Amino acid sequence: MRIWLTAIIALAVGATHAGADPLRSGAEAVRDRALKDPTAYEYVESLSVEVGPRLAGSEAAARARDWAVAKLTSLGFSNVHVEPFPITAWLRGPEDAEIVSPRPQKLAIIGLGGSVPTPPEGVEAEVALFHTYADLLAAPPGSLTGKIAVVTQPMPRATEGTGYGALNAVRRQGPSEAARRGAVAYLLRSLATGVSREPHTGALNYQPDVPRIPAAALSTVDAVLIDHLAARGAPLRIRLKLASTTVSNATAWTVEGQITGTEHPDQIVQVGGHLDSWDPGTGSIDDGAGMAIAVAAAKLAGAQNPPKRTIRVALFGAEEMDFARAAFAKAHAADNIVIIGESDIGADRAWEVQLPAGSAKAPEMLDYAATVAPIGVVVGRDPSLGSGDDTADLVRAGVPAFAVHQDASRYFDWHHSSEDTLDKVDADQLNQAVATWASFVYVAANSDIDFRALMAAASLPKPGP
Amino acid sequence: MRIWLTAIIALAVGATHAGADPLRSGAEAVRDRALKDPTAYEYVESLSVEVGPRLAGSEAAARARDWAVAKLTSLGFSNVHVEPFPITAWLRGPEDAEIVSPRPQKLAIIGLGGSVPTPPEGVEAEVALFHTYADLLAAPPGSLTGKIAVVTQPMPRATEGTGYGALNAVRRQGPSEAARRGAVAYLLRSLATGVSREPHTGALNYQPDVPRIPAAALSTVDAVLIDHLAARGAPLRIRLKLASTTVSNATAWTVEGQITGTEHPDQIVQVGGHLDSWDPGTGSIDDGAGMAIAVAAAKLAGAQNPPKRTIRVALFGAEEMDFARAAFAKAHAADNIVIIGESDIGADRAWEVQLPAGSAKAPEMLDYAATVAPIGVVVGRDPSLGSGDDTADLVRAGVPAFAVHQDASRYFDWHHSSEDTLDKVDADQLNQAVATWASFVYVAANSDIDFRALMAAASLPKPGP
Repeated sequence: MRIWLTAIIALAVGATHAGADPLRSGAEAVRDRALKDPTAYEYVESLSVEVGPRLAGSEAAARARDWAVAKLTSLGFSNVHVEPFPITAWLRGPEDAEIVSPRPQKLAIIGLGGSVPTPPEGVEAEVALFHTYADLLAAPPGSLTGKIAVVTQPMPRATEGTGYGALNAVRRQGPSEAARRGAVAYLLRSLATGVSREPHTGALNYQPDVPRIPAAALSTVDAVLIDHLAARGAPLRIRLKLASTTVSNATAWTVEGQITGTEHPDQIVQVGGHLDSWDPGTGSIDDGAGMAIAVAAAKLAGAQNPPKRTIRVALFGAEEMDFARAAFAKAHAADNIVIIGESDIGADRAWEVQLPAGSAKAPEMLDYAATVAPIGVVVGRDPSLGSGDDTADLVRAGVPAFAVHQDASRYFDWHHSSEDTLDKVDADQLNQAVATWASFVYVAANSDIDFRALMAAASLPKPGP
Repeated sequence: MRIWLTAIIALAVGATHAGADPLRSGAEAVRDRALKDPTAYEYVESLSVEVGPRLAGSEAAARARDWAVAKLTSLGFSNVHVEPFPITAWLRGPEDAEIVSPRPQKLAIIGLGGSVPTPPEGVEAEVALFHTYADLLAAPPGSLTGKIAVVTQPMPRATEGTGYGALNAVRRQGPSEAARRGAVAYLLRSLATGVSREPHTGALNYQPDVPRIPAAALSTVDAVLIDHLAARGAPLRIRLKLASTTVSNATAWTVEGQITGTEHPDQIVQVGGHLDSWDPGTGSIDDGAGMAIAVAAAKLAGAQNPPKRTIRVALFGAEEMDFARAAFAKAHAADNIVIIGESDIGADRAWEVQLPAGSAKAPEMLDYAATVAPIGVVVGRDPSLGSGDDTADLVRAGVPAFAVHQDASRYFDWHHSSEDTLDKVDADQLNQAVATWASFVYVAANSDIDFRALMAAASLPKPGP
């Protein structure tokens, strides 16, 4: 991978456009500088070492807020400020699980974000095992009464990270679907591509009409062991203990900063990542690296020349438990956001960019496509449907979005687990992603491209032949 | 790897010796059968799933003993019996560690086998950080008074697994060397090649003349984080809590079985592995796979034809805490052991066999070398100095030893950690190791080769020119 990247970087630097198009030559200069710039790696290293994990509502989240304000300020952003919003904080307590029979075996588990605790002595019950989530959904009401439902469906590995979205309901909806059928607790095989003893957490969403049951994720290895043991035919019993506390009047903060536009300061190119993280690792890939890419891209795009439009970064304060999205949409409903993008898929190389409908053939976007082609990035045929959870409400309200797709084939080995640490960040791949982002931000902020008008035109009925 | 192994297996099967040497053709038949035989994988799968971790002195060790008796019996071994011996059992309790300042961070640690517990509230102290073990040894007496000594020296990756032996003193002697200089607790970077959050345990050896201080291993990622934080210059404080119990009148068991020789039943080809394991994983590679190799090799060598000499297997009951070696040597001091070997380096492919001094050019061993050459195994130039901890006392007393070296480049990613689980066993590589072992056992048990006489001759002064 390193050799491959070195080769394409050399190619890119050698391929600088010699023509008279200042937008493209500016974008190429930004790209080439980004490939060698230390900003992004230094950002994620500092955050990982000096702050560490920062679950929304924890004391660490306030330290992360202060760190982010200082960091954006030191990087030269203006109007650095904090936007507080209310959240219900969920904080993990001691957790423990074991197979009780047919033979004792400690299980590597982690509670899902938002899970209710078990009683202090835990929940012990017979296992109802489902190899697929579809099998659980097919189980009749009452069939799981008094049991712990366990779903061991594996997640496929893919560059696109597709398996995560496809199986998200196993974690988010599974607990309530199990409770609807009578289960007293719920375990799923971690939504993860690797094979390891590290379990992967993530939020659940209880449905309002069924009891809230405790829910946790098994490591992939422990899920396989349960499959092997169950294949012997003897009934399995598991004991699960989860503790957690909930604080309903907690606060989270989104930190913002900008490089103000010289011609159209009210037109905003909005980028960002999320500042909060899950608790077991140090949040280095999710979303330390993502934030680092957006912040470094904004800085590098703005450093090439004072931008015509305003470049604004937002470091969202509660993505993992789904609170930042609505708060940000409410606070910025009246802003003139030209285009929006969130960086939240780790530290590895970019390979595709999706643009708002109707814009791929605009001259500015053809310049952009030519700029990133030498570093192995294509502009996708499908339009972008969105870009990150924190921007989703604004996108739904009509704000044009771009999306940079990075290689997610390793991401779900570590995501939401104790393995989300700095050593997973490859500085060369990180910078290739920064180059992809920075040159896009540069083109968007130094042109008059009107993504909204292009989207509107694309959605009009086509004229007949 | 799979493709490579498939290729060499096809080569080996195609290269069957057409000559009239029945020893070699028998060894080749054993080799070829072993490459496709399910015994070894089934052994380690059954042990991993049905028994799991089995620390000497735990209730699981008794279950492992019963499992082993049943398994050897079902595989057709005779004289299957149990040899009890006394041990001091060490059993892990709850463990916990965190960085207290400059900022809170939970640390992934595991107590070393034999460590004293901390007080219930833990030990909290400033860190004295050593990037190398040599730096710790160079620290003057009293220089660590009241501190937690932390050694973060990394272990190199190598096919030979050499780094583990070279750094073993960091774990075994480090706690007492730190205590000698005044430290109140000791942490080392896990003796491990991987980069992960899983810490790796192992036994320590307290020296008699200094206080016994609590000692644990950090995950490699946590050790790197401590290095990064310390590089910022602020003093580090760590809190460590370790609980454990010790039972001084516990019992362990070595399980044995044999295939009795038809011509020289008193001459014994002794092979084995160890039945006990560390507690965090399921002991699948250390030493489930090792035992599986030795047991399958004995069975396959004996199945080719009734052996002239007795083939005996021993499943040692307390290797990790060093108790089985002396007990086995005492119980079998009077046996006529022709040659001895222990299999205790995981599940991956064999690449070298070391023989007792003086025997490499014996016709029987030339047959053996020719038998394993097609599966990628060479006979080393250096004589074997031993083969496994459990056989060391007998080898020191003069018993000839052979050693099969397997690829250890992945072994120390998982060894002694919660990642020592069944998914790490590659059935193709495992069977290549079985083939290497089985054909050796076959040649040793069906020939009259006298390793003791060859060793004695090799140690005589060479005649002058």
